[in-house]
Amino acid sequence: MKFTQSSLKVGELATGQELNVPVYRLPAQDLSAPSVFIQANVHGAEVQGNAVIFQLMKQLETMDVKGEVTLLPLANPLGINQKSGEFTLGRFDPITGVNWNREYLDHKLDVASWYQENAHLEDKALIKAYRLLLIESCQAHLNSEWGVTTGKRLAVTLQSMAHAADIVIDLHTGPKSCKHMYCPEYDVDSASYFSIPFTLVIPNDFGGAMDEAVFCPWWQLADYAQSQGRTLGVPVSAFTLELASQERIDMDDALNDAQGILAYLSHRGVVSDKVAPAQMPRYGCYLKDYKKFHAPTAGMVEYKAELGEPLQTGETLANILRLDLYGTDNELTPLSLKQDCVPILHFASASVYQGTELYKVMTNLFEL
Amino acid sequence: MKFTQSSLKVGELATGQELNVPVYRLPAQDLSAPSVFIQANVHGAEVQGNAVIFQLMKQLETMDVKGEVTLLPLANPLGINQKSGEFTLGRFDPITGVNWNREYLDHKLDVASWYQENAHLEDKALIKAYRLLLIESCQAHLNSEWGVTTGKRLAVTLQSMAHAADIVIDLHTGPKSCKHMYCPEYDVDSASYFSIPFTLVIPNDFGGAMDEAVFCPWWQLADYAQSQGRTLGVPVSAFTLELASQERIDMDDALNDAQGILAYLSHRGVVSDKVAPAQMPRYGCYLKDYKKFHAPTAGMVEYKAELGEPLQTGETLANILRLDLYGTDNELTPLSLKQDCVPILHFASASVYQGTELYKVMTNLFEL
Amino acid sequence: MKFTQSSLKVGELATGQELNVPVYRLPAQDLSAPSVFIQANVHGAEVQGNAVIFQLMKQLETMDVKGEVTLLPLANPLGINQKSGEFTLGRFDPITGVNWNREYLDHKLDVASWYQENAHLEDKALIKAYRLLLIESCQAHLNSEWGVTTGKRLAVTLQSMAHAADIVIDLHTGPKSCKHMYCPEYDVDSASYFSIPFTLVIPNDFGGAMDEAVFCPWWQLADYAQSQGRTLGVPVSAFTLELASQERIDMDDALNDAQGILAYLSHRGVVSDKVAPAQMPRYGCYLKDYKKFHAPTAGMVEYKAELGEPLQTGETLANILRLDLYGTDNELTPLSLKQDCVPILHFASASVYQGTELYKVMTNLFEL
Amino acid sequence: MKFTQSSLKVGELATGQELNVPVYRLPAQDLSAPSVFIQANVHGAEVQGNAVIFQLMKQLETMDVKGEVTLLPLANPLGINQKSGEFTLGRFDPITGVNWNREYLDHKLDVASWYQENAHLEDKALIKAYRLLLIESCQAHLNSEWGVTTGKRLAVTLQSMAHAADIVIDLHTGPKSCKHMYCPEYDVDSASYFSIPFTLVIPNDFGGAMDEAVFCPWWQLADYAQSQGRTLGVPVSAFTLELASQERIDMDDALNDAQGILAYLSHRGVVSDKVAPAQMPRYGCYLKDYKKFHAPTAGMVEYKAELGEPLQTGETLANILRLDLYGTDNELTPLSLKQDCVPILHFASASVYQGTELYKVMTNLFEL
Repeated sequence: MKFTQSSLKVGELATGQELNVPVYRLPAQDLSAPSVFIQANVHGAEVQGNAVIFQLMKQLETMDVKGEVTLLPLANPLGINQKSGEFTLGRFDPITGVNWNREYLDHKLDVASWYQENAHLEDKALIKAYRLLLIESCQAHLNSEWGVTTGKRLAVTLQSMAHAADIVIDLHTGPKSCKHMYCPEYDVDSASYFSIPFTLVIPNDFGGAMDEAVFCPWWQLADYAQSQGRTLGVPVSAFTLELASQERIDMDDALNDAQGILAYLSHRGVVSDKVAPAQMPRYGCYLKDYKKFHAPTAGMVEYKAELGEPLQTGETLANILRLDLYGTDNELTPLSLKQDCVPILHFASASVYQGTELYKVMTNLFEL
Repeated sequence: MKFTQSSLKVGELATGQELNVPVYRLPAQDLSAPSVFIQANVHGAEVQGNAVIFQLMKQLETMDVKGEVTLLPLANPLGINQKSGEFTLGRFDPITGVNWNREYLDHKLDVASWYQENAHLEDKALIKAYRLLLIESCQAHLNSEWGVTTGKRLAVTLQSMAHAADIVIDLHTGPKSCKHMYCPEYDVDSASYFSIPFTLVIPNDFGGAMDEAVFCPWWQLADYAQSQGRTLGVPVSAFTLELASQERIDMDDALNDAQGILAYLSHRGVVSDKVAPAQMPRYGCYLKDYKKFHAPTAGMVEYKAELGEPLQTGETLANILRLDLYGTDNELTPLSLKQDCVPILHFASASVYQGTELYKVMTNLFEL
Repeated sequence: MKFTQSSLKVGELATGQELNVPVYRLPAQDLSAPSVFIQANVHGAEVQGNAVIFQLMKQLETMDVKGEVTLLPLANPLGINQKSGEFTLGRFDPITGVNWNREYLDHKLDVASWYQENAHLEDKALIKAYRLLLIESCQAHLNSEWGVTTGKRLAVTLQSMAHAADIVIDLHTGPKSCKHMYCPEYDVDSASYFSIPFTLVIPNDFGGAMDEAVFCPWWQLADYAQSQGRTLGVPVSAFTLELASQERIDMDDALNDAQGILAYLSHRGVVSDKVAPAQMPRYGCYLKDYKKFHAPTAGMVEYKAELGEPLQTGETLANILRLDLYGTDNELTPLSLKQDCVPILHFASASVYQGTELYKVMTNLFEL
Repeated sequence: MKFTQSSLKVGELATGQELNVPVYRLPAQDLSAPSVFIQANVHGAEVQGNAVIFQLMKQLETMDVKGEVTLLPLANPLGINQKSGEFTLGRFDPITGVNWNREYLDHKLDVASWYQENAHLEDKALIKAYRLLLIESCQAHLNSEWGVTTGKRLAVTLQSMAHAADIVIDLHTGPKSCKHMYCPEYDVDSASYFSIPFTLVIPNDFGGAMDEAVFCPWWQLADYAQSQGRTLGVPVSAFTLELASQERIDMDDALNDAQGILAYLSHRGVVSDKVAPAQMPRYGCYLKDYKKFHAPTAGMVEYKAELGEPLQTGETLANILRLDLYGTDNELTPLSLKQDCVPILHFASASVYQGTELYKVMTNLFEL
């Protein structure tokens, strides 16, 4: 079955040109199967998710797809098209500096009141009503009298569409990075289906990203219902996948990650075909144990620690080269950490200011 | 009396070059007089505060200054030196997009516990101990094991010095703007000394800026002491002055604003000379009534509403010109608001994306 | 008569989105009347030309237009939409740094050979053949085997269309600027029709801008023909108008400049209506006497000299404020020139590196 | 023997902060041995040359160095410190867009006149006088009445120092690149000493880069002297080495390239130690055969051709992925060339506008 294409308007450039995101869709064949929403490239330089969506479409077209599938590659046209020098300035709005991935709406619903009013509904109807509430809350925000920012319009337009799905996957990458993913604590078993070796287990709260914006209100509802003696479960799943490094397209590797997503979709019954997850060791750590190491001094950086490989306490993470200090003790300084870790990503450039976020490392890892 | 000059290190560039801020200081002649900390140009394009500090120094050198005065012009060397095209890209860290003015430390102190432990101290000793706590909290943050970001190092280094003063003034400007200032609710009477016609009355909470970072922990302490039956008052004052438009140096106008600051310092006894505040109407509005109006569509913008002048409901704020829509109803669209207001500032550029923050306007103004 | 709208493709963004320029056209009613090509906003921040084209269209629709009129507002969509901070980064390709206005094609024709082959043609046929040669040369460049740069594609696509016209006007602005225009030496009398007080008289050579790209090959042909004893004249006119400052839309002032253009078009018989040029003093200087003054030191800048007003030798052009040098002889330094001049434009920002182009001034002016 | 450190002022930032380049020097022990000038990092992101200078210093300190050695790492502090997003915006002046490497002075000397006046001098004196002329010409330019641009000040200050040396090496890198170097035609034998597999043989004319700025006036002199019957030779050598990719520090690889430079310096007698050049195949091509291939359409790019490896006619250079065109013939387009080549470098980002310079390839290679 072939995907249909449509287009979602998310903004307008100064010339009046519309910013549109291509939307590819397969309709549901079985309304009881979960629906899926996958977007890619909300950060402009993080392009590999587009290749994964491409490979996913090629696969899905040959499979027996039960649930509705909605795919939005190239989800942030303004961010993708914003070059600065030879690279894509894609992490933040060039005017305001606001991270494109921190503009999703925190609904801040009064869940208790809403639940009291709707507690009489059966589970299915309750979920439907709540979903409608979330979508309407997005729409109301977009139509506010004083307008919304460029980034908010993009994010909440995407979010509004994502709220309609049962499974939401947001495809990102790190700067220079090994593959890892974000998974909410309540849903940690799902991490074993994707072709991703490292998982960050995040709290069930709103932190600003798409996955959190999507699952957090559902977790709040489930949590409140539970406090009222009703077990509702969290009917929505949402993940962020970090597909290695930015500024990289690799079609073969994209196929691997498409297979991992299909393994999860197969497990969930979105596709009736059986797709087995890749056999691989998978490790997790809690978000609080995911540490940012900032450059203690400025300089040129030789990145030494291999991403995704264990690094012992005291082993060299990186060298800082200071040509202005040649002949002193500080001409070449190895940096190391005071605890064992697995370096997950490092800064993209080989020269840094003091304070630049040099590495992100997982500590206190456990096997999933 | 002449100012002494020293230098404050706030970071390092990639080449190893130190980022230093010049510090000008007059020592206290009377330790019972309040001490003052004034900084300028934390946002790189907002240069007029430097001219005000220049004029202030020229004036203070001829006056009888009782309290210690510490002045930091050019407070953000990285931001000031970061050009992009013909303008200064000065609002945010060029790497991360984080607003330079949102990096100050929220101490998140457990005020109740601290107060219980120190309630036996007399007011003066209590204040001294609390001040020390704030400064040590800044230092601890700067020395954290995992390092701090470039922006955090700058902001918290400045904040640490500001905490030592009784009066803190942060000199900013708007993009294209009339003069206005931010003043906490508990200290609103102070607004009548400055040469500034419009005042935003802000809550006593932490919102991220220097003034809030400085007064908020003191207000929390005073508030808690009050709840325990002790009237301590808020011993520290902090304001942000917005000295009209960015990318503008006007030495004569700087003298006006220096006079306004001197009128306040005279009132507070920092200088024993009498300096009368300027006779002028002054208006205020609450922060919740300070509205951001976002461009409903993209286009070229003719800014029509005069800044600092009342605009009636329905009057034209700006025209949006759309050459791509010539010959249609949308070729030239006047924008207006549904309530009376005073436009305070507008966007710096004459072309906008959909969603660009076009104007900020005060509504529900009252005379101060 | 109403303008028809079409669209000219000039490139593609990374998402695949086409870059299109709106093209407005009135057909010729009299093929013997000159045809006109006017473009605006090739530099992204120089938006006022769009307003002038808007006013020009409103006027022309009520007039008796004989010659074909082709108008391209928003001529550089990539440049217009490229923001960096609160301003438009519009002077150069963000990837390569190449000035958008220096990408036009220098045909480097062997005029002598071509003339020998075509000397038998009558004037009208000769001109037609030469025009075709120029357009074909543009097309060949665009279709070269190894491709062309983004900027070259834009510029040469516009140039190819401009070569078809007899009158070409390129609408720009300065950074902070009074109105002035560029006019080739052979055509200096034309400057008296526009509503522009200052004219730079440029040599008849190729210098890289649109006007030069258009008239230079025609002047070469006329020059060579003259050397062969045939007086052909330069059948094409081309001008660059600098409509005051960038980042500014002023609809009323746009009407003034539209009137000036109409006065010229009336004089040339493009419109049969009589439009008198504005009565105003007009001054010129040769390009070699148009001087760039670079900041001798870095610092904050108070621009003092009024643009468009005579400045005597030794009078203050600008003050350089150096807060890092407070208390020294260099804290506030007035800058002046060693000859009389009229300052035409100055840098857009109020802080400069050493060497920033601070002012451009005309010297050795003469009345036109 | 230890290097001495001094510092060269090349400009001032807006805050007044000086831009200084560290200068490391070993004095001559034998004035008849050639003197050497090596600079690195004129393009801000091209950092590996600093590591090579570091390794070179470590080696030279243990060797018998005859000629004066002057080393300038971190040669463009403004360019190195200019970040935009996670990368260094280092190729051009952020204000003007001018490539930092195209600001060197073209002396445009009247060599014939100068030679006539100085023809009576012996070779050594003639060379000394000419060298002085070049240095004075640089100084005069720097001191011009109207000032010079920021980039010109940097470049000509460096050039003035380079003119004093007999051997000048400028250390650069490509974006994503294999190692290659630029060598003037008259000096092509020298290419066999460096550890660099690919050499671009450039004409003896001025093209704007440091190497050309240095050797071109000497070649002009030698050429003119030859025309007058005097064989002077070109007494100065200048090369640009491209040390693989930008944004990369690799200390081990830097040692390899330091060895290559030492092999050349040994050959020239700068060091008396014998250092043999690396045994490796070396290939060259003429600059006219070094082709830039521009993206024929926009899109995401999978770079397929390996850098430094032969690519046959018709083999895939890169794939262009177009998610907006999924389901059409253009969803994934392989790009190939119509002739055999060796791809030397490709664009740094994985998404491109139409016209982006995608690859540079050598054609018509020959063994050196």
